[in-house]
Amino acid sequence: MRILVINPNTTDSMTEAIGTSAAQYAAAGTDVDAISAPWGARSIEGHMEETLAAAAVIQTVAENRDDYDAFVVACYGDPGLYAARELVEAPVVGIAEASMLMACTVAHRFSVVTVIPRIVPMLTDLVRRYGLDSRCASIRSSGLAVLEIEDDLEAAGDAILAEAQLAIQEDGAEAIALGCAGMGPLDSWLRERLPTVPVIDGVAAAVKMSEALHGYGVTTSKVGAFAHPGPKELLGAAPALQATIGL
Amino acid sequence: MRILVINPNTTDSMTEAIGTSAAQYAAAGTDVDAISAPWGARSIEGHMEETLAAAAVIQTVAENRDDYDAFVVACYGDPGLYAARELVEAPVVGIAEASMLMACTVAHRFSVVTVIPRIVPMLTDLVRRYGLDSRCASIRSSGLAVLEIEDDLEAAGDAILAEAQLAIQEDGAEAIALGCAGMGPLDSWLRERLPTVPVIDGVAAAVKMSEALHGYGVTTSKVGAFAHPGPKELLGAAPALQATIGL
Amino acid sequence: MRILVINPNTTDSMTEAIGTSAAQYAAAGTDVDAISAPWGARSIEGHMEETLAAAAVIQTVAENRDDYDAFVVACYGDPGLYAARELVEAPVVGIAEASMLMACTVAHRFSVVTVIPRIVPMLTDLVRRYGLDSRCASIRSSGLAVLEIEDDLEAAGDAILAEAQLAIQEDGAEAIALGCAGMGPLDSWLRERLPTVPVIDGVAAAVKMSEALHGYGVTTSKVGAFAHPGPKELLGAAPALQATIGL
Amino acid sequence: MRILVINPNTTDSMTEAIGTSAAQYAAAGTDVDAISAPWGARSIEGHMEETLAAAAVIQTVAENRDDYDAFVVACYGDPGLYAARELVEAPVVGIAEASMLMACTVAHRFSVVTVIPRIVPMLTDLVRRYGLDSRCASIRSSGLAVLEIEDDLEAAGDAILAEAQLAIQEDGAEAIALGCAGMGPLDSWLRERLPTVPVIDGVAAAVKMSEALHGYGVTTSKVGAFAHPGPKELLGAAPALQATIGL
Amino acid sequence: MRILVINPNTTDSMTEAIGTSAAQYAAAGTDVDAISAPWGARSIEGHMEETLAAAAVIQTVAENRDDYDAFVVACYGDPGLYAARELVEAPVVGIAEASMLMACTVAHRFSVVTVIPRIVPMLTDLVRRYGLDSRCASIRSSGLAVLEIEDDLEAAGDAILAEAQLAIQEDGAEAIALGCAGMGPLDSWLRERLPTVPVIDGVAAAVKMSEALHGYGVTTSKVGAFAHPGPKELLGAAPALQATIGL
Amino acid sequence: MRILVINPNTTDSMTEAIGTSAAQYAAAGTDVDAISAPWGARSIEGHMEETLAAAAVIQTVAENRDDYDAFVVACYGDPGLYAARELVEAPVVGIAEASMLMACTVAHRFSVVTVIPRIVPMLTDLVRRYGLDSRCASIRSSGLAVLEIEDDLEAAGDAILAEAQLAIQEDGAEAIALGCAGMGPLDSWLRERLPTVPVIDGVAAAVKMSEALHGYGVTTSKVGAFAHPGPKELLGAAPALQATIGL
Repeated sequence: MRILVINPNTTDSMTEAIGTSAAQYAAAGTDVDAISAPWGARSIEGHMEETLAAAAVIQTVAENRDDYDAFVVACYGDPGLYAARELVEAPVVGIAEASMLMACTVAHRFSVVTVIPRIVPMLTDLVRRYGLDSRCASIRSSGLAVLEIEDDLEAAGDAILAEAQLAIQEDGAEAIALGCAGMGPLDSWLRERLPTVPVIDGVAAAVKMSEALHGYGVTTSKVGAFAHPGPKELLGAAPALQATIGL
Repeated sequence: MRILVINPNTTDSMTEAIGTSAAQYAAAGTDVDAISAPWGARSIEGHMEETLAAAAVIQTVAENRDDYDAFVVACYGDPGLYAARELVEAPVVGIAEASMLMACTVAHRFSVVTVIPRIVPMLTDLVRRYGLDSRCASIRSSGLAVLEIEDDLEAAGDAILAEAQLAIQEDGAEAIALGCAGMGPLDSWLRERLPTVPVIDGVAAAVKMSEALHGYGVTTSKVGAFAHPGPKELLGAAPALQATIGL
Repeated sequence: MRILVINPNTTDSMTEAIGTSAAQYAAAGTDVDAISAPWGARSIEGHMEETLAAAAVIQTVAENRDDYDAFVVACYGDPGLYAARELVEAPVVGIAEASMLMACTVAHRFSVVTVIPRIVPMLTDLVRRYGLDSRCASIRSSGLAVLEIEDDLEAAGDAILAEAQLAIQEDGAEAIALGCAGMGPLDSWLRERLPTVPVIDGVAAAVKMSEALHGYGVTTSKVGAFAHPGPKELLGAAPALQATIGL
Repeated sequence: MRILVINPNTTDSMTEAIGTSAAQYAAAGTDVDAISAPWGARSIEGHMEETLAAAAVIQTVAENRDDYDAFVVACYGDPGLYAARELVEAPVVGIAEASMLMACTVAHRFSVVTVIPRIVPMLTDLVRRYGLDSRCASIRSSGLAVLEIEDDLEAAGDAILAEAQLAIQEDGAEAIALGCAGMGPLDSWLRERLPTVPVIDGVAAAVKMSEALHGYGVTTSKVGAFAHPGPKELLGAAPALQATIGL
Repeated sequence: MRILVINPNTTDSMTEAIGTSAAQYAAAGTDVDAISAPWGARSIEGHMEETLAAAAVIQTVAENRDDYDAFVVACYGDPGLYAARELVEAPVVGIAEASMLMACTVAHRFSVVTVIPRIVPMLTDLVRRYGLDSRCASIRSSGLAVLEIEDDLEAAGDAILAEAQLAIQEDGAEAIALGCAGMGPLDSWLRERLPTVPVIDGVAAAVKMSEALHGYGVTTSKVGAFAHPGPKELLGAAPALQATIGL
Repeated sequence: MRILVINPNTTDSMTEAIGTSAAQYAAAGTDVDAISAPWGARSIEGHMEETLAAAAVIQTVAENRDDYDAFVVACYGDPGLYAARELVEAPVVGIAEASMLMACTVAHRFSVVTVIPRIVPMLTDLVRRYGLDSRCASIRSSGLAVLEIEDDLEAAGDAILAEAQLAIQEDGAEAIALGCAGMGPLDSWLRERLPTVPVIDGVAAAVKMSEALHGYGVTTSKVGAFAHPGPKELLGAAPALQATIGL
């Protein structure tokens, strides 16, 4: 199968790292391509940046809709996820969603360790949107900016580990979801240091979930919230998007 | 005070009607301007269209940020609301939010009567995001497309009234929020037919709420979720947006 | 328009201060009268005192029902609010309710800073009654007795500020609702010290909300929970109350 | 032990019927007295009437505080329950509370069958206050006025039975709580007709719960919400109430 | 009446202590027998041990189904409670359930003080199953193993008291439920040290609740979740269980 | 990888069908074995039967703990799931859990179509335990007994399809989870008839989820709720179980 992993920000080095994480755990027979958003913020650390990213994500899905069997939205706010689902029958999986659902199968409660503090209320809303509030022990900020992580992986690992340990000791976390696509390269390092606690990178989780959905022939529902948009003028929208909805 | 009412879709006739609704209930001393989204869908009836609208809303707020005392997002999904709040100190009020909060002060539970069925899951999520699930008796679809309303106001009124009555009789609704910016012209007509039940148009409600916030000097919090975005390259974003965040 | 602000306790100096807070932010054309409960506790700091106050509030509303366009219940437990709504078509707004709803439009989550600790469980129930648990970051006690506030405003301000800061830093609060009608005189002082955080006094918020409701012609629902009581003997009740319900 | 069952309304014939229900199931060694509210509405069918009743209940508890081992508030809105708890160490049990808690031990979900429709939103709030929303299958109105029940017990039984059957068949109810103190005389009649479904009258349930609490030496918490009120002038309050709080 | 108190573990000395606690508060006319599980773990401190215990509990109920008027499941996870209810018309009361429901009548919120930390997530689920999350201030571990309690009651008392005090001071607890059947012997000792806070042992609470249910003639619902199992081969199950379901 | 699919009931023909469903969607390189419970009910249609099944499941896991990379509990109540997780590091996946989580990635809300009506309250609790109440549109009974399904697959398909259609039209379902392990053989048939709606068999979903977890190296948390049981005498338990915990 072919999976397109979309980095909703415009930092290509991060896209490359995400692609590596995605490919690392892909099954034999799974091809993974990684792509940056065509426009938008260098990193996504707030609602405005996420809103731009969401629009870029749906453009990217539209432009690639016939070439992939599944799409992964690789930013931990899952920007544009529901919108992208309207455009394709193939599964579209968010990395936040995938990491949280996977955590639910191996732990009573999970915590998310994410980047800067202002992400915490955003993820609080996201967890609630997915209905998982009662399964989420806490959302903790590591204090890291998104692009700091790849700049100094070692320091980032230390910061994430410290919060993960607090989540386990103080909040009752039994699994740790890594709350930024950029944290993927640290999953093995963290697993070594937390051997009894599942550590889950959303990118890897979303690739495996995509394979699971595709393998069982599960496609996106077209009967309600994610039905295909009707043909309608999208003034000023990208041609691919317009073509996708039949204009 | 000056309020900018933003119609997140690109249908100017609807913007005009929204402007009329907004001005009708504005207090003496309140100036209201209405503006269409600079680009995007003719009407907003799904996640994809809403995602585009959200990006257009923040661009519009950015372009007008120094000229208004409050901003109203005049589409019942409140697209881009949280993102727009990051850009300004002035209040930014969504029409869904305003109508629901106002309903809470005069009714035990309210129902929303909205347009086509696929909007129902979207509003279900929105109500939950605002934390008002226990105050919402139901979300009912009138079956109307957004742009059908202004085409035949009389037929639209009948369809909305029918659902409002079902909401009252079957769901325990005690107030009706009109779940589309295009329904504003019908509020008086509906109030006449439902004399014991508050009928609340979001546009009018948001204007009054903006006046209330401004009159008491309440501005948008800048300490967490709605703090100003840091300076950061927004590849390909509108110049106003880039300027706004300090690039 | 004419607003009657009812202080549900029997301390006239507090009523006067509440009246001043209410008038300070009233729009041109809004007349505000403040009145004490005709009987009951000097201050309201528990369920028993609140229960007496609720009965006094409905008597007061009954006695003044034809003379005002809106009523404000100016004690942060909103005593008698739902009962008073049964007696009039005009809006009846509680200061807790108004401050919380207003906070929801400018902040992701708000905290309430209130008086003595035993009020915390009462407000916990109230927040839950209004359905706003997911929007409330915390309810914090300042340790102040109600009547201590006006005795030493400076000390009270310090105590409230300290808790507000903890709410912001530890609980994720992005706005502060002042959890006692007596705290109104401190709102400007607190705003100066918390310039990025909305500080909302319920009395002012309720006045503005009353103006908003009145300005848009929104009246209390008469179709369900707040329908007018039927005529029925109220043994020993105040004549105004009896007259009001048609005896 | 001695239990005082307080009918919060002022209809003595109903008080008598409540007393009979209470005594019927009392254990050997339990003395039950029933008393009407000293003032207030003939029946309680709305917030205003309930608010008056709550004040009358606390006066009654105050006047009898030294003479009973437990108090039962015998109106299905449990008016004044939390306030009354502040005045005594003895348990104060509400009939709604007792019937719902008892139902939880023998059924997966229960329904309440109550009187006129406007009671439904009141009980919805009450169930939520007690935290039992997930255990409550539905709250159904029988359409009966409170005082109609004792006027024609047979017709009342038929109306209640019809709603109970709908609750079981359509809502998933596995037990029925009788949502009015006046329905007590019908419990046996209903049990005969619903032999596999527990039918629980709140008055009887509250008497048994009072015996259970007293028998195990459980008294009302005095550490938080139900702590004794401090001495404070209660302008115009009944002498018993004033004396109770130490004036 | 006759109550069978089932200790779901296989430590007879603990069964004896439970029997003593149960008998101590039983009313005149109540006979209490205590019995150990016929097989299973010496103490129950995890899901696996609880699962075995649940099966042993239902066997025990089946073997004694005709000889008792009520059954008490005396382990704080209430193992097998819902299953046992299917087998009998008599009430089956869990000690966790009984202690929590009783606490709800005398306190705004309760805390549970239980044994080792891994029980906390189990009780979190149980509280949620019963719908009482909003009434539960916290679940605290005393660090004690189940069988340590009877080995050194004094040390156990100190450990429980310490956590109870923290629950009251930090979590807002107003009542304490003792989260292990083995803690029953300490209830009086704790009550002396926490005179304003109800301390509730589940065994005693369940006995009193059983008396209350029996005294009012309330039996287990047979209309839905707890209906009698149909006749069906139970390969390898205990003869009593097979006989009970009619094979 | 090697997956053991455990049918918690004792009907070997059903085990065989489950094994076929499981193998059908297994990836290349995945070996699936299916096994019946060693003892217990012929089918699981209530709490008692589920309790027995849970004990049999943990015995089965214990007996096979060293031979498999993942375990699937193939009954839609997920009996013994949490207990089995304590015994192994490998993932243990329930079919209800897997089908619901998978549905969450392709639909706004899902419905479960299950067997006889008494299963509905059991699944209501299970959905709530998993925290997915807000994602579950409804749980509907097809009226089928478990063993009826394989007896007449065609009739079963019709019954399930009818309820699925009602779930979609009346409850807002956008995906259908098949609420019994025996329904697996019908998934393709149902998908043909509901082409826009994902239909998800739990057995297939759990196999794919097991592969996903294993492929990413995610194992069961050993830090809290699912930590290995300590060594402790399990009187009368199966030797494998005793050996597993180190006795």
